[in-house]
Amino acid sequence: MVLGGGFGGLTFCQHFKHPNAHVTLIDRQNHHLFQPLLYQVATAGLSAPDIAQPIRRILHDRKDVLVVMDDVLDIRLGEQKVITENETLSYDYLVMALGGRTTYFGHPEWEQIAPGLKTLDDAVKIRRDILLAFEKAEVTEDPEERQRLMTIVVVGGGPTGVELAGAFAELARYVLFRDFKNIDSRRARIIVIEASSVVLSHLPPELALSGQRQLEKLGVEVRTNTRVTDIKAGCVETTSGTIYAANIIWAAGVGATPLTEKLGVPVDRAGRVKVLPDLSVPGFPNAFAVGDMASLVDKNGVLVPGVSPGAMQEARHVAKIIEDELDSPKATPSRQAFAYFDKGTMATIGRSAAVAKIKDLEISGFPAWLAWLAVHLIFLVGFRNKIAVLMQWFYSYLVYKRGSRIITGLSFQKVSKPQARTPEGINSGPRYAGVQK
Amino acid sequence: MVLGGGFGGLTFCQHFKHPNAHVTLIDRQNHHLFQPLLYQVATAGLSAPDIAQPIRRILHDRKDVLVVMDDVLDIRLGEQKVITENETLSYDYLVMALGGRTTYFGHPEWEQIAPGLKTLDDAVKIRRDILLAFEKAEVTEDPEERQRLMTIVVVGGGPTGVELAGAFAELARYVLFRDFKNIDSRRARIIVIEASSVVLSHLPPELALSGQRQLEKLGVEVRTNTRVTDIKAGCVETTSGTIYAANIIWAAGVGATPLTEKLGVPVDRAGRVKVLPDLSVPGFPNAFAVGDMASLVDKNGVLVPGVSPGAMQEARHVAKIIEDELDSPKATPSRQAFAYFDKGTMATIGRSAAVAKIKDLEISGFPAWLAWLAVHLIFLVGFRNKIAVLMQWFYSYLVYKRGSRIITGLSFQKVSKPQARTPEGINSGPRYAGVQK
Repeated sequence: MVLGGGFGGLTFCQHFKHPNAHVTLIDRQNHHLFQPLLYQVATAGLSAPDIAQPIRRILHDRKDVLVVMDDVLDIRLGEQKVITENETLSYDYLVMALGGRTTYFGHPEWEQIAPGLKTLDDAVKIRRDILLAFEKAEVTEDPEERQRLMTIVVVGGGPTGVELAGAFAELARYVLFRDFKNIDSRRARIIVIEASSVVLSHLPPELALSGQRQLEKLGVEVRTNTRVTDIKAGCVETTSGTIYAANIIWAAGVGATPLTEKLGVPVDRAGRVKVLPDLSVPGFPNAFAVGDMASLVDKNGVLVPGVSPGAMQEARHVAKIIEDELDSPKATPSRQAFAYFDKGTMATIGRSAAVAKIKDLEISGFPAWLAWLAVHLIFLVGFRNKIAVLMQWFYSYLVYKRGSRIITGLSFQKVSKPQARTPEGINSGPRYAGVQK
Repeated sequence: MVLGGGFGGLTFCQHFKHPNAHVTLIDRQNHHLFQPLLYQVATAGLSAPDIAQPIRRILHDRKDVLVVMDDVLDIRLGEQKVITENETLSYDYLVMALGGRTTYFGHPEWEQIAPGLKTLDDAVKIRRDILLAFEKAEVTEDPEERQRLMTIVVVGGGPTGVELAGAFAELARYVLFRDFKNIDSRRARIIVIEASSVVLSHLPPELALSGQRQLEKLGVEVRTNTRVTDIKAGCVETTSGTIYAANIIWAAGVGATPLTEKLGVPVDRAGRVKVLPDLSVPGFPNAFAVGDMASLVDKNGVLVPGVSPGAMQEARHVAKIIEDELDSPKATPSRQAFAYFDKGTMATIGRSAAVAKIKDLEISGFPAWLAWLAVHLIFLVGFRNKIAVLMQWFYSYLVYKRGSRIITGLSFQKVSKPQARTPEGINSGPRYAGVQK
């Protein structure tokens, strides 16, 4: 049984094949999400279906894989049972690939104010909140309030934070400014807060610095060596002062699903299962964990990073182990230890701006952006989406208009009223007198 | 001042131009919606941003038009004031184009169970509910419950109902059936309930009958001369029996916005303002109503139908009147009466299936479908969307896969649990034993 239809779970299903086996894949969503492009939905560059595919469709020619849309509530490794919202299932082998979630370092109350970016719904919510803030800024006459509405704080300068900040800056500077009459959206402030001394700290220092410069060239304020001390509605307190901002995005902490803590097996600080070198769970050789919910230093001494290639390589490794054991069920298991193969790492900052490290090659700027574009297109699952995304990118590149600036979901969630800081009635001026002679 | 950014309000803004005038356009959404294709979002054929455009973007080169995203709460014609959620505005001229809404003929309690299709959020909700029902059917072993989950009832056999039913039938028969292992989605029942003796009763009898036959060929059950007597969760009671269905879509009643009833002016049964021949509101020559919120028999004795060409023609008529009066403010107003020009009417039923009436020409089947495609592409607002929609249609046409079968919004609204009719534990069978040796 496979839990999770992300990169890990899906790769397992695609690679695992055995005549005697049936696979059940459980995911709480009906779609596989191309998470590396999720920030583009949040920043109105792509529409939600562009980066998602129904899991059923991806696996529709696999008669041996049953796809079930359900929520996993508990995993009982000792009893070989998985409890979901609708049923209790037993398994012979278990592959856990439930991914990560946003964590707030002991401040769960920040989640309501500073949403993270993990699901399509998160992305659509962020897009809606940011576009709504510009709508409110357009009709506010209090200059302080207007600036607050046009300020976006991104907490965390990792790849997600940098990609979000760069895309927000482009949205405000090149796309939205033509649409509004009363505000100059180019005056929007995008601020990245990073606790360490540089953004993109997983990259070599020179490359990270190049990334930071490219970000600043887009007008993003980067505050390094700065920690968030508190987050309240509309304001962030940091070690270098208070920032008033209508939108605060949390891109700082990623942890494993909370289910891991109930497993009764060793986990690391972020809640990831400390798996054995063969990726199995200590004490349960027929249960494996891969991707963001597993923590492993591989046989070459490399800590496997929480990126999609890591999850996919792990999934293939587990598929091989189970296939081998099903082929010779009586032999003593002598499983191979997993080795991570680093294909390189990259982060995009904006149009023609990116940094990439592929083996010993470090590139930045336009060539890095082209490399990023190529890699992401190649790996986008599904034919339609590849063309739709390519078209939308190409079109955005040419004319700098964004196609997906649509605010939806207003009826699901009541939009918060403008802040009390706006003086009453200030909005009714002669500008609003309608058709005037 | 213009209220509403639909076909009426937007057309007014695009056509009205006067050196001394400023226009304020108020809409509660940030986007103009291409409503004729909304059913395609509900049936997973298109994604939401494909058929919507930010109003700001459409009007971004009009310096004299201020776009405000706000909700109109009240209109005081006597005081020449409009009260919105955030402010009170006064006007010299008022163009009301707030459109229609779904009405339930005195049964507002049906709304929760049988959603209508008026907004993008409605469409996304319907899409989600229908895809979720198939997901549940896949894991249900009770055959009755499975059939209920795979039954969709469309109340109303007008153009919207017919288009929805045809698209649902295609979705179930040609698209979804490849994705599921346990259910045969081609056994889904799509039932259209129509009170009169034929669907598409606004068309000439022969054409309407042709439409009904095309619909039945797709496997849709059409129940004419049938009235809905009650709607409960999961079941519709009609004059020809009870139908158990997980999804019930209301495509029967369209009325004007409830604001019209507070205006204190004559309205028709559906709540539409009975406007004068020049489209002004009786007693208030500087206030006009156009589109779905106005009711008028034009100077040729034709009742202007509630379709987008009607709204657009009315909007242009009003723009001309106001421009003329601003040019010669002192002359006695002698306004032209509005005359509706009928360009024809069409309805699509499915891939290559449609009916159309253009002047005295009546066509059906593939040629009608081509005509429908051409007209809708020509009128789709905005370059990007036209190409995106064309591509998606063409792709669907070739391979019969739908690109937008993505369930989103689960976190906004808790999905209802499966009905109590499913016996407990019935879902845990040997099929679910996971990876089996």
